[in-house]
Amino acid sequence: MPPQRATLLQVAQRAGVSRSTASFVLAGRHLDMRISEDARQRVLRAAQELDYRPNLMARSLRTKVTRTIALVSDTLASDPYAGKAIHGALAAAVAHGHLLFIGETEGDPVVEEKLISDFLDRQVDAFIYASMFTRYVRLPKQLKGHQVVLLNCLTRGARPAQHQIIPDELAAGWSAATLVLEAGHRDGIYLVGSPDEHVFAGRERLAGIREGLQASEANLAGTVDCDWWPDSAYEAVSRSLEAGLSPQVFICLNDRIALGAYQALRDAGRRIPEDVSVVSFDDSDLAAWLRPQLTSISLPHYQLGWQAVEKLLGPPSGPAVLRLPMPVRRRDSVGKPPVR
Amino acid sequence: MPPQRATLLQVAQRAGVSRSTASFVLAGRHLDMRISEDARQRVLRAAQELDYRPNLMARSLRTKVTRTIALVSDTLASDPYAGKAIHGALAAAVAHGHLLFIGETEGDPVVEEKLISDFLDRQVDAFIYASMFTRYVRLPKQLKGHQVVLLNCLTRGARPAQHQIIPDELAAGWSAATLVLEAGHRDGIYLVGSPDEHVFAGRERLAGIREGLQASEANLAGTVDCDWWPDSAYEAVSRSLEAGLSPQVFICLNDRIALGAYQALRDAGRRIPEDVSVVSFDDSDLAAWLRPQLTSISLPHYQLGWQAVEKLLGPPSGPAVLRLPMPVRRRDSVGKPPVR
Repeated sequence: MPPQRATLLQVAQRAGVSRSTASFVLAGRHLDMRISEDARQRVLRAAQELDYRPNLMARSLRTKVTRTIALVSDTLASDPYAGKAIHGALAAAVAHGHLLFIGETEGDPVVEEKLISDFLDRQVDAFIYASMFTRYVRLPKQLKGHQVVLLNCLTRGARPAQHQIIPDELAAGWSAATLVLEAGHRDGIYLVGSPDEHVFAGRERLAGIREGLQASEANLAGTVDCDWWPDSAYEAVSRSLEAGLSPQVFICLNDRIALGAYQALRDAGRRIPEDVSVVSFDDSDLAAWLRPQLTSISLPHYQLGWQAVEKLLGPPSGPAVLRLPMPVRRRDSVGKPPVR
Repeated sequence: MPPQRATLLQVAQRAGVSRSTASFVLAGRHLDMRISEDARQRVLRAAQELDYRPNLMARSLRTKVTRTIALVSDTLASDPYAGKAIHGALAAAVAHGHLLFIGETEGDPVVEEKLISDFLDRQVDAFIYASMFTRYVRLPKQLKGHQVVLLNCLTRGARPAQHQIIPDELAAGWSAATLVLEAGHRDGIYLVGSPDEHVFAGRERLAGIREGLQASEANLAGTVDCDWWPDSAYEAVSRSLEAGLSPQVFICLNDRIALGAYQALRDAGRRIPEDVSVVSFDDSDLAAWLRPQLTSISLPHYQLGWQAVEKLLGPPSGPAVLRLPMPVRRRDSVGKPPVR
């Protein structure tokens, strides 16, 4: 008789951490989930001492017949972090004993049609239809009647015919507003970045910021218009400061804008957070690399991918739009208002 | 009769650019290939005027029977830029009328064995065996007898049994040394980052730097030891400067180290490039975002993925190790030596 397998719970108990923490460490997601190196080491040691074989693999080996899902996306390469959504989808697919096909259309409907019909020829069981930027899409006709989950995109219309998984950008905007208010700021709060009405993330982030501020009877003092890139943000913020702008807070529409704002503030001799607090969205690697480290509202790429597969292969439920929470990563870029 | 299709050459001629430039623009690779926005616009306009349908798609539609290749990698998520290798592989696969399976093993040999046997059950025609960090691997037994290309990894032994595609890190080290020498530096050239003997990129980059310098009878003045992350580099460089180090040039082993070095130099009141020149490796997005923009030797992720598929599906050739050039991206962080 083979020796009894150690369970994840046993590993967690031996390491003195929660089951979830142990699970994240063993899935290699310690960075993603901000698990301390100390806790990570304890989990790894416990797993080794108990000869634990990760659950993910156990599950993948349990299934005899391997089935297939296909991820059809417009493009993967435009945002390096979008790859994490694929990683999440892959991990969940393996956990369910499935293989993952990946196809990219570069937004071309002819390529898309060809890809999907190729996947159908290959007897793919289910589809993830993904967009790298959150946006409205029209679902290809060929996919009707098949099991489909939309990843980072939405169909128009009152009732979704499929699960649609998107980040909760509106709540993220509220979170940004709330943390600024909690630090004591009410005045001199500027948005940095142009919220293009056609860009879902920008529109929802701004709406959330406005609503969050207004709930406490505060308001944006204005907007520093720029593209969502460091150089554009640097130029725009530098110009505004030279023209006499006296901000207390910059809410930047993404981390790249925040980088440009940092550079402009530094060159203008303004300290972060003593003179100006900065908060941002995305929580890309950059956020933790800046000095001071940047407080940012996190885009849950990995979870988006994971949840898309869970909705396809997990317990059935009525189709709905699922807005995944965007966690606040509090770091060192938000301070109290200056004493006047 | 349907109208005659415009060729890529016709588009290029109308736009006044080379065939390659037109091809890169139409494959959405203008950023990757540093093609000017002006040239890009001319190509897009020409393509539209001639009603050009991209070659990539034309080729994918030409093939009737769609075949499959599988990319088996250790992990995709550890480096966000590694996703570009997948993008390159996908684009080349589609160009050859193939679909791409993607599987991730998290480095676990049991998962790897299961994945590969699942792919074999699915009648995959060929495999890309990929590592996200360049390293030596032992090819899984199951893959013997199948068509395999190694992507970013190598097998030990005198003669490769498969094509093995890696970045030419040794030549990249030479390039870094050469550009520093060409700017007039001979003294005060420091390496920043610890070249762990077990890390292929570090070992080869350092060897190339040493050889490149020695070819002009110059040498490294020393090493600032640190991990390959911004905070470690910041601490190490700050300490060295406080202890009286007077560098003319920092050759940083990657862009993240360079970011930390930038921050430390700034806090110490040293200007880049007037006081200290900085050169780096990887050419991640970060390089173009720093102020001044960072000169960096580029890791050709996209080309690695593309070439792996080309070697599988293109014209047959004897198995060999293919070292892809790492282009120098000259920006603003390297200056002349200070006049003494």
